[in-house]
Amino acid sequence: MQSLFRYNWIVRDEWFELLRQLPEEELTRTRMGGVGSFLRTMAHIVDVEDSWLRGLRGLPDEPFDYDRYPTLEDAKAFSDMCRPGVEDFVNAWMDEMENEMLEQFAFGEVMRHVIAHEIHHIGQLSIWAREIGLKPPSANFIGRGLAKNG
Amino acid sequence: MQSLFRYNWIVRDEWFELLRQLPEEELTRTRMGGVGSFLRTMAHIVDVEDSWLRGLRGLPDEPFDYDRYPTLEDAKAFSDMCRPGVEDFVNAWMDEMENEMLEQFAFGEVMRHVIAHEIHHIGQLSIWAREIGLKPPSANFIGRGLAKNG
Repeated sequence: MQSLFRYNWIVRDEWFELLRQLPEEELTRTRMGGVGSFLRTMAHIVDVEDSWLRGLRGLPDEPFDYDRYPTLEDAKAFSDMCRPGVEDFVNAWMDEMENEMLEQFAFGEVMRHVIAHEIHHIGQLSIWAREIGLKPPSANFIGRGLAKNG
Repeated sequence: MQSLFRYNWIVRDEWFELLRQLPEEELTRTRMGGVGSFLRTMAHIVDVEDSWLRGLRGLPDEPFDYDRYPTLEDAKAFSDMCRPGVEDFVNAWMDEMENEMLEQFAFGEVMRHVIAHEIHHIGQLSIWAREIGLKPPSANFIGRGLAKNG
């Protein structure tokens, strides 16, 4: 479980790095599907991970507002700000937490939802990137030194 | 671990069902990114899962040939043919298998690679689908009754 979160964080940062090449109008241009733009998708995957994990940690959540992240650097700063709290929870994950409940959802179900959610959106970004001639970061899990991380 | 495989199988079959609506020329049309077409991507995710899990099961693998799956029904039949063997292995998965090795890869690493691989490609399909006016199946993990499946 933990290693799939770590995979997502590595891949996410590779995407932030790649997208730095793009001018703002490409980052914010509305594209077909997904959350509509590179920038919104990056902010969205951070928000969804953070919101669900705030729920699991018993913390209040705030309504999300894309306008708070008008640039890629804002979205990256948001990701960096959320990471430590999320990472602490993920690192402390134990199998016994699988069936704790957050409203109608088991904790294990929420964790897997968050994992799949980010991978799915990154897949979408990869198509948009190819459409404008950018080579996406690898989506491979293997070869990233994540074998022994649970 | 198992429940993420089950998630992928459910979503995959929803995609086979959705794609039935498309004429062959849309299924085989070369699109930007991914494995190049709806049909190839569907056959590819089946092949990649089956090939890696054949490896984990100590079975020989055959070189993959897209030409063997010229129609969506062929790709679906390929998926249905591979499923029982893959499913038996996934159902029998135990934590003790995590660090068994397939060449340079830990078994647990291979399993997570296969999971992420399919979700990533399904994300790509969702963009192509929107581009031609099709509504993709949900990518949600929650709400599919997968909570208690490990």
